[in-house]
Amino acid sequence: MNRDFSFTHYWQERTRWVNEALDRWLPSEDTPPAVLHRAMRYSLFAGGKRLRPLLVFMGYEMAGGTTPEEILPAACAIELIHTFSLIHDDLPAMDDDDLRRGKPTCHRVFGEAIAILAGDGLFSYAFRLLTQGPLPPERKVRIIETLTEATGSAGMIGGQVLDISCEGQQPTRERVLEIHRRKTAALIRASLVVGGIGAGLSEAGLQVYREAGEKMGIAFQIVDDLLDELGSPEEVGKGVKKDLARGKCTYPRAVGLEKAREDAARLLAEAKGAIGELVGTERARPFLALADFILSRTY
Amino acid sequence: MNRDFSFTHYWQERTRWVNEALDRWLPSEDTPPAVLHRAMRYSLFAGGKRLRPLLVFMGYEMAGGTTPEEILPAACAIELIHTFSLIHDDLPAMDDDDLRRGKPTCHRVFGEAIAILAGDGLFSYAFRLLTQGPLPPERKVRIIETLTEATGSAGMIGGQVLDISCEGQQPTRERVLEIHRRKTAALIRASLVVGGIGAGLSEAGLQVYREAGEKMGIAFQIVDDLLDELGSPEEVGKGVKKDLARGKCTYPRAVGLEKAREDAARLLAEAKGAIGELVGTERARPFLALADFILSRTY
Repeated sequence: MNRDFSFTHYWQERTRWVNEALDRWLPSEDTPPAVLHRAMRYSLFAGGKRLRPLLVFMGYEMAGGTTPEEILPAACAIELIHTFSLIHDDLPAMDDDDLRRGKPTCHRVFGEAIAILAGDGLFSYAFRLLTQGPLPPERKVRIIETLTEATGSAGMIGGQVLDISCEGQQPTRERVLEIHRRKTAALIRASLVVGGIGAGLSEAGLQVYREAGEKMGIAFQIVDDLLDELGSPEEVGKGVKKDLARGKCTYPRAVGLEKAREDAARLLAEAKGAIGELVGTERARPFLALADFILSRTY
Repeated sequence: MNRDFSFTHYWQERTRWVNEALDRWLPSEDTPPAVLHRAMRYSLFAGGKRLRPLLVFMGYEMAGGTTPEEILPAACAIELIHTFSLIHDDLPAMDDDDLRRGKPTCHRVFGEAIAILAGDGLFSYAFRLLTQGPLPPERKVRIIETLTEATGSAGMIGGQVLDISCEGQQPTRERVLEIHRRKTAALIRASLVVGGIGAGLSEAGLQVYREAGEKMGIAFQIVDDLLDELGSPEEVGKGVKKDLARGKCTYPRAVGLEKAREDAARLLAEAKGAIGELVGTERARPFLALADFILSRTY
């Protein structure tokens, strides 16, 4: 990687790969049942940052992978999974959110029934994509296994249950960390790991990915909590101070704003250190830049 | 297979395998988040007929498979997928059903949010099971691909959208067949096919499975429609005449009761003929008995 490395360019290029592939692979808006495919595409193309696919590419490239097309289906699949979780989390029976990424939420546009089914459809399609492409079958199976661990009752879906159950209670630091670990960090961690599996990374390397990915994921969610308290709705693109209003168990509520910011910075520094040590600072550069972005982001 | 073949025994034995394995493999009721695992288990062990797992075993054994343990994870996975679809279909935003298999529906017991997430959790866990067991990775990948086709927007989930969209309209035969093909027959067909893939059945054999499985699946749903019109709630175990009350697009409404019964019988006879020709009447015996059960069932 040369000295003129531009993280913005790196991210934009991979975002383009993902967006073009998703558009190509997903059924078109006029494929019956059209309303379902419109709803799936509406939420998928509502302007997400494609952070998780970015981590898949990073995990793959830092492990020595040189054919990013072979990991592209997995990168897209993880964005489908992420979008599925957002649609379901926003439902009236859950967080009852009207805005997501600056636009009306899926159920506000298409109704609850279609929103539930659009989420289900994206989740199913994610696993479909994971069976496609040139990766050897044993790597595909390991990737699918990794993602079912990350999404299941021990991961993302279980985290959403804990999140709902905690509403209105005074959170402890340990309890919030448990929620953030499952609800947000599990999929972010898995993104990095999936990229590593795709490139044939060793078990020892994957273990470093797991720990660094989890730290990055928890830090990402702590910053998200901070943005809810401190950000402006224009920048954040969804309602702010909603966590407070709903009595959500956020990290700043448990430890205070200053300590929350410190802990996010420390977790990201540890993640950067571990990955830099594993693959060398030069090869780790996109990951280090992403960690810096996560700490300083305003949206 | 000997002359004293008892279909009841054959079915009960495989139901026991599936129930024991599901109980062993699914997180226990006290694994956190406990409420989620209670909800998942509540719906899963509410007394289903395990018809789809039965078809997985049949597809496997008719294709010459002799180690049913190797297909057991797939048989269980399909029951998880089926239960996921029932929980979501029953939600207030969809069919708004209070009873399922003679017991209160998942959301009536655990609330809407947990019901949605229990469905999601079962769906995720299904794909997890599909990565487990001794089958070669390339067969696992093909099985997962088959099940994403069967469940996705072109299959079960798309069928539910068509079903909702059709409510209150005068159904044509073609439209109802399209709904039944996707919503019900896609997963029943896939069950047979998954068993065939597990046993290494040829592409020509799988094609026969696909056609016979689809016919059986459509017939199963036509009989379901008939039971809704003619059955007693005690026998059927869920509300009856609900399809009529909601203006559902049922097959009898499109063609009349008598023709519906005739068509179900014809489809099942065709399925029996095709499978009997493929594997011989002796080996096909459980499948032929299942077809007869489907036509005569009262629950």
